[in-house]
Amino acid sequence: MVPTVDADEPLVHGGDLGAARRLFPGAPEPFIDLSTGINPNSYPLPRFSADIYARLPAPAAVDVLAAAAARAYGAPAATSVAAAPGTQILLPLVAGLVPAGRAVVIAPGYPEHARAAALAGHNVTLADDIDACRDVGLVILANPNNPDGRLLTRADLLALAKDLRRRGGLLVVDEAFMDVAPSGASLATDVACGNVVVLRSFGKFFGLAGVRLGFALAAPPTVSRLRAALGPWAVSGPALAVGAKALADVRWISRTRRRLAESAKRLDAMLVRSGLDIVGGTSLFRLVRTPTASVLFHRLGDAGIWTRAFAENTDWLRFGLPADEREWRRLNAALTSPCDSQAGIGHTTAIKSKERRSHCGGKQNDRFR
Amino acid sequence: MVPTVDADEPLVHGGDLGAARRLFPGAPEPFIDLSTGINPNSYPLPRFSADIYARLPAPAAVDVLAAAAARAYGAPAATSVAAAPGTQILLPLVAGLVPAGRAVVIAPGYPEHARAAALAGHNVTLADDIDACRDVGLVILANPNNPDGRLLTRADLLALAKDLRRRGGLLVVDEAFMDVAPSGASLATDVACGNVVVLRSFGKFFGLAGVRLGFALAAPPTVSRLRAALGPWAVSGPALAVGAKALADVRWISRTRRRLAESAKRLDAMLVRSGLDIVGGTSLFRLVRTPTASVLFHRLGDAGIWTRAFAENTDWLRFGLPADEREWRRLNAALTSPCDSQAGIGHTTAIKSKERRSHCGGKQNDRFR
Repeated sequence: MVPTVDADEPLVHGGDLGAARRLFPGAPEPFIDLSTGINPNSYPLPRFSADIYARLPAPAAVDVLAAAAARAYGAPAATSVAAAPGTQILLPLVAGLVPAGRAVVIAPGYPEHARAAALAGHNVTLADDIDACRDVGLVILANPNNPDGRLLTRADLLALAKDLRRRGGLLVVDEAFMDVAPSGASLATDVACGNVVVLRSFGKFFGLAGVRLGFALAAPPTVSRLRAALGPWAVSGPALAVGAKALADVRWISRTRRRLAESAKRLDAMLVRSGLDIVGGTSLFRLVRTPTASVLFHRLGDAGIWTRAFAENTDWLRFGLPADEREWRRLNAALTSPCDSQAGIGHTTAIKSKERRSHCGGKQNDRFR
Repeated sequence: MVPTVDADEPLVHGGDLGAARRLFPGAPEPFIDLSTGINPNSYPLPRFSADIYARLPAPAAVDVLAAAAARAYGAPAATSVAAAPGTQILLPLVAGLVPAGRAVVIAPGYPEHARAAALAGHNVTLADDIDACRDVGLVILANPNNPDGRLLTRADLLALAKDLRRRGGLLVVDEAFMDVAPSGASLATDVACGNVVVLRSFGKFFGLAGVRLGFALAAPPTVSRLRAALGPWAVSGPALAVGAKALADVRWISRTRRRLAESAKRLDAMLVRSGLDIVGGTSLFRLVRTPTASVLFHRLGDAGIWTRAFAENTDWLRFGLPADEREWRRLNAALTSPCDSQAGIGHTTAIKSKERRSHCGGKQNDRFR
């Protein structure tokens, strides 16, 4: 239960190698970034024409992208799709679709959900189960969840949406990692019911997070409101071009799903061989629970491998996928290298503890890790 | 005076060659787009690394961009700068910085200003002069104004800001075309006063509208609120990279200012030789007033030249700058070609009038042209 959230306070996220280098200045380069759930083998970029950068994005190109997204995600139609420069920027807009009131955010989960609800003026409560969500104005959750990968069934979520609908409440399902979940789990097909908004992230599965592209799938009147807030040129020319192409590339998509699942299996095997327990995840990241998580975070960091630690769950460590054989080998070597002496590890941990606390977010934010 | 604004209804803008081709299907290709105020000679794109597209934009890169923008625009510091994927997406956020109340938008001007204020819940009134703005909660205006180029003095705007400040009101100055205005006219230097937000557009002057990059310059507490709403990765990797480089390229900037001024002069001479009156503009666009604006719009359209017509000011036509000698020649030829017979022109206009109305926006939107 969280009485207040400082909505203006930035949260700490994975993917910041600048932070990694500040924390581990002596680590070998290049740093390996396993701190995110982003596919390290990106969709191949098309050759962009100069016009893509120079001209205002064309309304027709936005329509093409929306249609491709609707097909790829199983949304009813292009009119069910609002395209945005990433789902991040959509979160406060979506949270603001219902009047400020009581909101529940599922935790542990993605900390930006609580911040977005607070930004939209809601009184935010954290809950670990959707049963606590039935009489509020807004529920935000990730499915599959991050970092534990917990997958809620479509039936359970539809029942929740029905309960919420009776009181004018809205269910927001962030399906950032649904591309690698079992088919049939997405609520994209159900957004016509009116009080469900599904968020889909382009950058994670397609490995193009720098492009900034994400979608809200919703009933057409809700999509109109979101499009109005985003304005006519929300998505950049390059994002429109690569997004429409990639979302229609069914061969690449199915091959990538298979490859990511194989890589996740390989990562599990490597982590288990090192004596670690896998407690969850998706094909894009694996979550480990170990009492030595902090020691391991630092040992890997010293070896130039940046993982994701959690201030509120100090026995968790999240691993993204290595990009290539060189990275697999370096990860394996770092996991299996003989530990420093206890004294040495203790020393390392002590001198870095302050900086690490700051890396994991301030006191306020720690509640949302 | 506008009692209501349909904030969800899209407005019609320049730059849409799809609309040009639908309206003038027989026109010679390539279409020449003079319908925007975007520099047709773009800043040269650097070669982007694959990481720029693949990885989440780094917080350090955002800081570098903010510092470059502060220097280029004359804002007090990087903490006075919120970077966004275009100023368009900032408009409703900025309009929402003050509680919903009475807002005045200067008209004729940029129609998205009134829509953004309405989206943020304000009761929007249009006024043609800032003297009508002194006792409201929010004023939005463009300086220099679009399409007439009217430039308000810094002293007048600072006096208005002072008046507004007494009642907790906010002044938003959209300086989308300030890059080509006389130096010393920008309010970027004055945002520390607390109730002034300056919007700067990257894409127009640098000719990179597809990249989507814009800035809000404001006092640091306001910048924090805007950054919180935009989230940590609002600006794409390519926009961060080219933005930081271009804004620091003082040689390109001063050379481009000179060249744009020369081109605007050349365009004026060409338009005047065709018997047209220039009534305003900036170095990035020129505004013509003529009773034959509609005929001229169609004559140019039939020749494959797309200009900007205004439903509410039917004797106005706005011209952007041709990109190269070939475009200058085609424009000159189209302007000086012997007119069709009156009967012919009348016929063309009649059959296209319905489609043109739709191009210029519906009844609601016409008020804001």
